[in-house]
Amino acid sequence: MEIFWTEDVSDGLCRLGEEESAHCVRVLRHRNGDNVCIIDGHGTMYECELVSDSPKAAEAKIISTHPGWGSHGYNLTMAVCPTKNIDRFEWFIEKATEFGVDCICPVIGDHSERKVVKMERLKKILLSAAKQSLKSAIPQIQEPVSVNAFVRESAGVDSLKLIACCFDDLAPRHSIKEVLGTYSGTSVTILIGPEGDFSKEEVKAAMEAGYIPVQIGNSRLRTETAALGSVAVVYYNYM
Amino acid sequence: MEIFWTEDVSDGLCRLGEEESAHCVRVLRHRNGDNVCIIDGHGTMYECELVSDSPKAAEAKIISTHPGWGSHGYNLTMAVCPTKNIDRFEWFIEKATEFGVDCICPVIGDHSERKVVKMERLKKILLSAAKQSLKSAIPQIQEPVSVNAFVRESAGVDSLKLIACCFDDLAPRHSIKEVLGTYSGTSVTILIGPEGDFSKEEVKAAMEAGYIPVQIGNSRLRTETAALGSVAVVYYNYM
Repeated sequence: MEIFWTEDVSDGLCRLGEEESAHCVRVLRHRNGDNVCIIDGHGTMYECELVSDSPKAAEAKIISTHPGWGSHGYNLTMAVCPTKNIDRFEWFIEKATEFGVDCICPVIGDHSERKVVKMERLKKILLSAAKQSLKSAIPQIQEPVSVNAFVRESAGVDSLKLIACCFDDLAPRHSIKEVLGTYSGTSVTILIGPEGDFSKEEVKAAMEAGYIPVQIGNSRLRTETAALGSVAVVYYNYM
Repeated sequence: MEIFWTEDVSDGLCRLGEEESAHCVRVLRHRNGDNVCIIDGHGTMYECELVSDSPKAAEAKIISTHPGWGSHGYNLTMAVCPTKNIDRFEWFIEKATEFGVDCICPVIGDHSERKVVKMERLKKILLSAAKQSLKSAIPQIQEPVSVNAFVRESAGVDSLKLIACCFDDLAPRHSIKEVLGTYSGTSVTILIGPEGDFSKEEVKAAMEAGYIPVQIGNSRLRTETAALGSVAVVYYNYM
């Protein structure tokens, strides 16, 4: 099943942008009368019939509307320090989308080597992964902020807040399994540090903002593996 | 911590091969008297002192022996159809090693587009991932066989045997979470199909050999994501 995307939905019509129109009409050769599936990126899928097969501005008439199509039973925010090798971070956001994630926040830690990301490229990967894994909501991605800024902004948010760090100096870490197992809500926020881990100051500030320090099993995981492992664990927990 | 690997261990000495010697002596500039950690790839790590810093045949005296170093509390065999784009399969075996996997069997299904893999390249990735994630056992990798041959060979093995397929035609699939949750043993074998899924005949033969059809949640996952998700779920289950 091929999925198209547009945010331009009104009066019973979905209007595709230039790129999606070209893909639909020029590449996949859809013509008026063909049935197509279109997501709005915010949680709704429309089954449509193509009524204008222009390769620059295709239009499709909505036949049926499917809110919550491909949704999951939790709300997950992943605040992850982008890896030095950006391929690994890009891989993470693709795979996280397949499992199910709601918001990705690139955060820059005291020990981060990478401080910039290409937002347009990341958005393209998220759109492509959402379409490929049959989800109508594309994960949101936020502009990078520092770990401390993210922690401050999320302090008042009603969510199970976890920080995965590799040391027990400030407080003994809990197992992520144990913490998730005793949580009855559905909103989870997880902070994952860079290759050089969080600084003690960052973990201290996070704990003061309500973050629980956790460990993700006994293996030494790379940043992107710890991040994806956390997503898989949340996905499994709410399965 | 930098880890080296050799299978040549006897008389209180670890003898590194040419490639590992060059890495130890030429690249990392270790000299006689330096402490080094060496794994045998079969589950033991040796803390050693370098006694011959030859860049072609380094030798190190064993100071202490750590059997089971970096091991996990389960035995997991992943029989996975290699992906058309081999990068995705290589990515899977790297990440699976980080979480913890014991044996990887590339299997060729009726609908597999890729029928060959480069074993030497896969072995290098496994060695590198095991060293990076501080494990003394390198996952075994077997020569590719057909799905049907793998199923026949594993029929008599005492293990929880699961096949992840995308259809319920032959029997309603169980949730992998439910099946793992009611299993009290520690040996798990999971079969993951190719992009085009298993054929009905393959699933039927697997079920006759004791495999339970499972689904890995509601998301549509790519082959390598389903495979890694299964590894993460087993890792989490025994956490």
